Amino acid sequence: MSDGAVDARYSEAQGDKKGTQPLLVLRPKTTAEVSAVLSICNAHGQRLVTQGGRTGLSSSARVCEGEAVLSLERMTALDPVDSDAGTIVVDAGVALQTLQETADAAGLMFGVDIGARGSATVGGNVATNAGGIRVLRYGMYRAQILGLEAVLADGTVLSSLKGLAKDNSGYDLNQLFIGSEGTLGVVTRACLKLHPKPLYESNAFCALPSVEAAITLLSRLRSAMGPMLSAFEIIFPAVYESALRFSGKQRPVQATGDVYVLAEIQGTKAEVDNERFAEALIQACEDEIVSDVTVSQSPREFRAIWELREACSHYITSCSNMVGCDISVALREMPGFLSSADIAVRTADENASFNVFGHLGDGNLHYIVGTEKPDAVTDAILSCVKAANGSISAEHGIGLDKKQWLHLCRSDAEIAAMRRLKAAFDPNGILNPGRIFDMPAQQPPEKDARS
Amino acid sequence: MSDGAVDARYSEAQGDKKGTQPLLVLRPKTTAEVSAVLSICNAHGQRLVTQGGRTGLSSSARVCEGEAVLSLERMTALDPVDSDAGTIVVDAGVALQTLQETADAAGLMFGVDIGARGSATVGGNVATNAGGIRVLRYGMYRAQILGLEAVLADGTVLSSLKGLAKDNSGYDLNQLFIGSEGTLGVVTRACLKLHPKPLYESNAFCALPSVEAAITLLSRLRSAMGPMLSAFEIIFPAVYESALRFSGKQRPVQATGDVYVLAEIQGTKAEVDNERFAEALIQACEDEIVSDVTVSQSPREFRAIWELREACSHYITSCSNMVGCDISVALREMPGFLSSADIAVRTADENASFNVFGHLGDGNLHYIVGTEKPDAVTDAILSCVKAANGSISAEHGIGLDKKQWLHLCRSDAEIAAMRRLKAAFDPNGILNPGRIFDMPAQQPPEKDARS
Repeated sequence: MSDGAVDARYSEAQGDKKGTQPLLVLRPKTTAEVSAVLSICNAHGQRLVTQGGRTGLSSSARVCEGEAVLSLERMTALDPVDSDAGTIVVDAGVALQTLQETADAAGLMFGVDIGARGSATVGGNVATNAGGIRVLRYGMYRAQILGLEAVLADGTVLSSLKGLAKDNSGYDLNQLFIGSEGTLGVVTRACLKLHPKPLYESNAFCALPSVEAAITLLSRLRSAMGPMLSAFEIIFPAVYESALRFSGKQRPVQATGDVYVLAEIQGTKAEVDNERFAEALIQACEDEIVSDVTVSQSPREFRAIWELREACSHYITSCSNMVGCDISVALREMPGFLSSADIAVRTADENASFNVFGHLGDGNLHYIVGTEKPDAVTDAILSCVKAANGSISAEHGIGLDKKQWLHLCRSDAEIAAMRRLKAAFDPNGILNPGRIFDMPAQQPPEKDARS
Repeated sequence: MSDGAVDARYSEAQGDKKGTQPLLVLRPKTTAEVSAVLSICNAHGQRLVTQGGRTGLSSSARVCEGEAVLSLERMTALDPVDSDAGTIVVDAGVALQTLQETADAAGLMFGVDIGARGSATVGGNVATNAGGIRVLRYGMYRAQILGLEAVLADGTVLSSLKGLAKDNSGYDLNQLFIGSEGTLGVVTRACLKLHPKPLYESNAFCALPSVEAAITLLSRLRSAMGPMLSAFEIIFPAVYESALRFSGKQRPVQATGDVYVLAEIQGTKAEVDNERFAEALIQACEDEIVSDVTVSQSPREFRAIWELREACSHYITSCSNMVGCDISVALREMPGFLSSADIAVRTADENASFNVFGHLGDGNLHYIVGTEKPDAVTDAILSCVKAANGSISAEHGIGLDKKQWLHLCRSDAEIAAMRRLKAAFDPNGILNPGRIFDMPAQQPPEKDARS
């Protein structure tokens, strides 16, 4: 189950955060093998870091000193789609894109999409409760999960792959493993919900005079389009202009705005749904909520609008000296947060450059700043998040990178409860130790710390 | 915080399962008071049973010997609706119907509806992860919850009422309290998601030749209607005929079927959506999937169709000597389950009478049998659930009533993991003890069993 020489890829991580060399790499092929590995490591207090596609953005999977890598890259089996039920059971090492393509081939769709789809795996997506562009319509990854198979630190296998839409027979243990970044168990398989394919989709790109106007437009489109509204993205002017230059793409609207919005609908009937969508947008123009708008009239135009949104991410990836915060605040707090963060960041670094975009429909912004003072700028942004009663991680997780700021959005009581869970399920602290939070006393591991 | 004399209502429960007299009744008005009560009870090992509307169907809230009642009936505050965000924060003692009416007055809707709406409370709904008729469209109660305030056995308050759609900052502790039937903490407040009101709704009543045909119809309507399909209920002939007699209502279709289906859509535009709905149903008639169908053409007809479904529940409530199982199985297992359960129940009691109806869209049946041999019949039904790899409780929970059968659908490893959680969060076993499962050694309570 282990390679002789350790390949360098296991030490790679996003950006410039390279992990150390792992002690060894374990590459189990089945849940039973994962169980055997964990049972032995637990008995010997050997710390492990679980790896999927290593695309995480907060260094949960980065190798720390003294850790072995538990890579699920060989667990890539997919069961056939159950079309009547709209479900599929897949191994943790399956790439998101493979899952999407398998659903598509069966005439269905998977509800989560993120940029790293080609490498990010189901196991990592579960462990980080991945979000992305269509949370507004389909929810986070948590909402896609009908059941999991997971292995506890002591090798216990918990299997819940029945594919039941409703099951209130005792505690839902699956929830423990979703978004806990591999610290409570290793997810090996998942039963996932698939959705009917949209019969029709369209999008629009708008220039708006203010973020307040964007929030009003969101509220109006929610009322007008109901569950059809499937994405509502915001782009601020600096990153919009940079993404246009970087990608060489055409401006979708001629007017300039204080903010730009990409709204998407997934409907059932082209003429009717797009007419309603266009009506709501035209009314918003007449009411001076929107300054300028383009509604896509073809699949080509639809893709072009999405490509501009994706160009924002590509532009950011091409830059160096960027610090990124993935934050969320309630919509009513958003305008105040943006003003205060702007001032706080400029105070921390007068030369800071701002790149702000994200999923406004979920109150989630990627707030990315070009700066030579990363810690001071991060402090500034996340302190404003605290003041706005928001979250310092909307979708990327805490990992190693953000744990020093966790107390800004979670109370001492909450962090103590997280530690209670960690102590109950991983008493020797072998699973992704030090991710999200540290345990108070890092004593030498015992065979059963609770006895 | 306690009444002098104990009112008899705290010992009431559904049906004929009366609780014993509680030692005393505690009626806190705030989360701080709940915290003070739990802290004192925990120090003295005083067992508590938490009560909301006492409408639960598996006796989680029934008083056992030596327990005090913690009633949240005085916690009935509602914050104003946040219309832009589509959220509301309410106290645990608020009735579901009050929540629904408050959402409605703000131009929004709450996604869960159940028959006990007038008495059932938000706290009880959270603790039992309530389901109901529109899970297909809006999900279980879990999917409505953006955050909770809850009190642990030792009085620790965990508060997460920020109303964030996305928050991956560490463990989602809310999940611990959803569906754990009050055994891990006391939910005192909830931040809940509200949905846009449907612009248009319609329903249809069908007679079909078989349960297989009903499953095919479900699959077709999912494809044709996408997210508009909001309910898909099944009624078997015996309870259909009894409900018609009991209620004196008209037959919605003239043909008789081997099963009957009520399907509902929530759409945006009457002509277009109902035309598509009718087309799919007519095609199903031509393909002999459906024998006869009525599509509602007015709000009056829409209500009349729902009233027939509700008459099934009212008829069952009027009967005595009924044992009820609230089960779910994967759709592909449903026909086999029904055949085997029919044989098994007749073997257990040759005079048994069958009343089967429920939420086929979720694989959830209320399988209710008139019998003089309740334990043998329950054994028979739930053994068939085990064989079909289903759940012995789809939405009602386990409580005191079903815990002897929990092992039929949850593994020893899963039940051990549930006990690990219970030991970590309620080491003295004061919160709803003995509900869902028993702890292995019921030792006399210590001040801190973990130290």
